Amino acid sequence: MAHIEQKLADIGLSLPALPPPAGQYVTAVSVGNIIYTSGHLPFSEGRLIAEGSRGRVGDESLEAAALAARIALLNALASIRSVAGSLDALERIVKLTLYVASEPSFNDQHLVADGASSLLNELFGEKGVHVRSAVGVAELPLGASLELELIVQYDPFYKLV
Amino acid sequence: MAHIEQKLADIGLSLPALPPPAGQYVTAVSVGNIIYTSGHLPFSEGRLIAEGSRGRVGDESLEAAALAARIALLNALASIRSVAGSLDALERIVKLTLYVASEPSFNDQHLVADGASSLLNELFGEKGVHVRSAVGVAELPLGASLELELIVQYDPFYKLV
Amino acid sequence: MAHIEQKLADIGLSLPALPPPAGQYVTAVSVGNIIYTSGHLPFSEGRLIAEGSRGRVGDESLEAAALAARIALLNALASIRSVAGSLDALERIVKLTLYVASEPSFNDQHLVADGASSLLNELFGEKGVHVRSAVGVAELPLGASLELELIVQYDPFYKLV
Repeated sequence: MAHIEQKLADIGLSLPALPPPAGQYVTAVSVGNIIYTSGHLPFSEGRLIAEGSRGRVGDESLEAAALAARIALLNALASIRSVAGSLDALERIVKLTLYVASEPSFNDQHLVADGASSLLNELFGEKGVHVRSAVGVAELPLGASLELELIVQYDPFYKLV
Repeated sequence: MAHIEQKLADIGLSLPALPPPAGQYVTAVSVGNIIYTSGHLPFSEGRLIAEGSRGRVGDESLEAAALAARIALLNALASIRSVAGSLDALERIVKLTLYVASEPSFNDQHLVADGASSLLNELFGEKGVHVRSAVGVAELPLGASLELELIVQYDPFYKLV
Repeated sequence: MAHIEQKLADIGLSLPALPPPAGQYVTAVSVGNIIYTSGHLPFSEGRLIAEGSRGRVGDESLEAAALAARIALLNALASIRSVAGSLDALERIVKLTLYVASEPSFNDQHLVADGASSLLNELFGEKGVHVRSAVGVAELPLGASLELELIVQYDPFYKLV
């Protein structure tokens, strides 16, 4: 099994089935050695059923939202794998952007984002070090609690073992 | 006439005059073979006069907003043409980001974005396949209903016929 | 003293100490000749103490917010210097994105952004010409009034004098 996915399995996680795009676009594209992803919602089996995956985030739902950010990240990584062939082809997680549907006066968007950032660091080590923007927005597609996008650098010539 | 602009004309559309920047910046820049655009508003003749181009979008104004997204896209493409020389120089639409000023409980930002994505796919075919983020925000400059930005890949050495 | 930083000093400004990331990420990374920054808050000595650096921006606080945008920019430039070695290594300011926590009906996010754009143009001249998105959002981390991110092109082989 691929190295990064083995690490995922070791902590009881796995990549979901490739998320379907919610419109006329794709979920990841490459340009040279860069892969951009679409904004990903925290889908479980293609639906917003996980705790913290719907509605506006507030102080009480912070912890659930951080887990939902991790779910959205797994969806984004599944999209990246479909372009890169393997997560082991990734050379650097460059940027994570997280939009959090926020209740008035909720100002811990960065702690929600840590749910995804900590997993990136755990999985990718030095290659997982990334820049990040976390912002609180009004409303998100399908009533999702958050939307996450990634920019990563990869080796287009990585040979699958 | 250039190929892509002929396609536009065939469906009754055309690129607007280059939109003026609303501040101390430019509307498109290139770095290597990538062009980034500024956030573009749905200007018609430099003004927010089209239906759906102003105010917050809700269920009743969804259809008008999708058309406004298409108008904002035409403005962004006009800016890109000014850098690339021709839309025929574009090799890939990479990423579309759409910010939609949203009424409470409006969660169809992705359907608004489809107004722009569908035109990109129609004009550029395989080269038009892109990633996308659509988010609902509180307020936008000048009271616009939406703001659209693009990242595209192009051939800097494309020869104009 | 480096050229750009001398210009800063000439107008009474300087780069702050490197801002600490508010979570599990870094504040700037390079990919090839591009540097991406995280979203930067308007920190003064690591705190949101400057006028206009906290809360939602409205018509009355526009001027203070434009100065806060300038402060956030200085923080982002400090992060970029830590990767590039010197601001003199920058070849192009590519893109500025500004999220402004906005009061209802506040639609001058672009004027807030001009506080940062004008300084970029003053410091970098032709190299400072950039694209920009300015959007009004609901809430930001730590209750900040705005969050600013940059993409710049630089010379990775720039020799420090």
